[in-house]
Amino acid sequence: MKKRKRKSIFGKLQRTPKWKKEEFTEIEYEPTTVKELLTEMKDISELIIDLAYSAVLFDNDEIAEEVKYLEVRMDKLNYDIRMISMMAARTKEDAEQLAGILQIAEAAESISNAAGDIASLLTLKESTRPILPKLLSKADEKIFRIEVLAKSRACNQKIGDIKVESETGMRIIAIRRGKYWIYNPQSDTSIKAEDWLIIRGTDAGYEDLRKFLKGQLKVLE
Amino acid sequence: MKKRKRKSIFGKLQRTPKWKKEEFTEIEYEPTTVKELLTEMKDISELIIDLAYSAVLFDNDEIAEEVKYLEVRMDKLNYDIRMISMMAARTKEDAEQLAGILQIAEAAESISNAAGDIASLLTLKESTRPILPKLLSKADEKIFRIEVLAKSRACNQKIGDIKVESETGMRIIAIRRGKYWIYNPQSDTSIKAEDWLIIRGTDAGYEDLRKFLKGQLKVLE
Repeated sequence: MKKRKRKSIFGKLQRTPKWKKEEFTEIEYEPTTVKELLTEMKDISELIIDLAYSAVLFDNDEIAEEVKYLEVRMDKLNYDIRMISMMAARTKEDAEQLAGILQIAEAAESISNAAGDIASLLTLKESTRPILPKLLSKADEKIFRIEVLAKSRACNQKIGDIKVESETGMRIIAIRRGKYWIYNPQSDTSIKAEDWLIIRGTDAGYEDLRKFLKGQLKVLE
Repeated sequence: MKKRKRKSIFGKLQRTPKWKKEEFTEIEYEPTTVKELLTEMKDISELIIDLAYSAVLFDNDEIAEEVKYLEVRMDKLNYDIRMISMMAARTKEDAEQLAGILQIAEAAESISNAAGDIASLLTLKESTRPILPKLLSKADEKIFRIEVLAKSRACNQKIGDIKVESETGMRIIAIRRGKYWIYNPQSDTSIKAEDWLIIRGTDAGYEDLRKFLKGQLKVLE
């Protein structure tokens, strides 16, 4: 059997493996290394818990919907990481290393499933939903979802430049852009038209930011 | 059957139920309402994910140990919430409400178990542990655990007064005090001798704060 020369199973794979091209031609973006997959799984597991509790505590169907999107994404990542790990393992040492990584991946999927279970309470009919908003401490900030319209001046601006946090007290915790997600965006992350921003903050801050992102306010101040 | 007059199953129970007194005399503190139980379960599920990933990414056994403590605490809370729910349900409506709450509690426990699975990778022998630190982005801050010694000037001071965050850039994300936990402590939370602080930040900030909490530095500046 001919051995392929490989640098490291954890390093960057230069090309998309053939099985991926064949099976997932409908999917635009594929992370190509275990590192990328695992980093995104970690990011999702932190974000999804936050969103799931927020959805039920504030009875917010939109945020519950984001939980569902993330759950589907996590399934996909877990499938990919299993595939890539099995393709990569050549020696006993490889397999041991990868078994540990799969353990993290399985745990991340359990987390995302648990978040889905929490958010799915919103699908119950009103009378059987637990009265959760009563359980909230007053200090808790809400999580909101806002779509950026093309006519907003936020488009193609960096988060830091439009001063979202200093002017409104709202913090953008994630951005969904088509099928991509950006977790914990930084001040140099640009906002694009049709982005869905996941934002944490108060009702007052939300109102101003919503108007700005819908193009009804020229500037945040 | 005599009906007891009850205001609400979600309200504050004035007295510790009898079964608790009998069965858990060895435990000092018992949350007494569904609200308190569920709030703590939510806090734990957010904290434990963070700690679990941090433990494996930074190969930190101390943080893995905190994950284990929290996992045990979560089991206890889940047991309590099941007991209190079953004792409280008198009508079909009660039962429906409480079933929803138990669904959240079960999910919280799954989250904590998944976090435990992640942290348990540290118990593997060195050669079989996945090489995770390589997966980190450089920007990631670490999580540390520091015990406050009685001789430190931090004792009986409020977090805001000793300026932890502004002087060191470190953020205290939780405090373990004996069997109690304080999640997301605020600037008016006091620090006590023998507290274990769970702190997020950089190596440089950690060194100063550690010396201060061990009494080797008189003041943070």
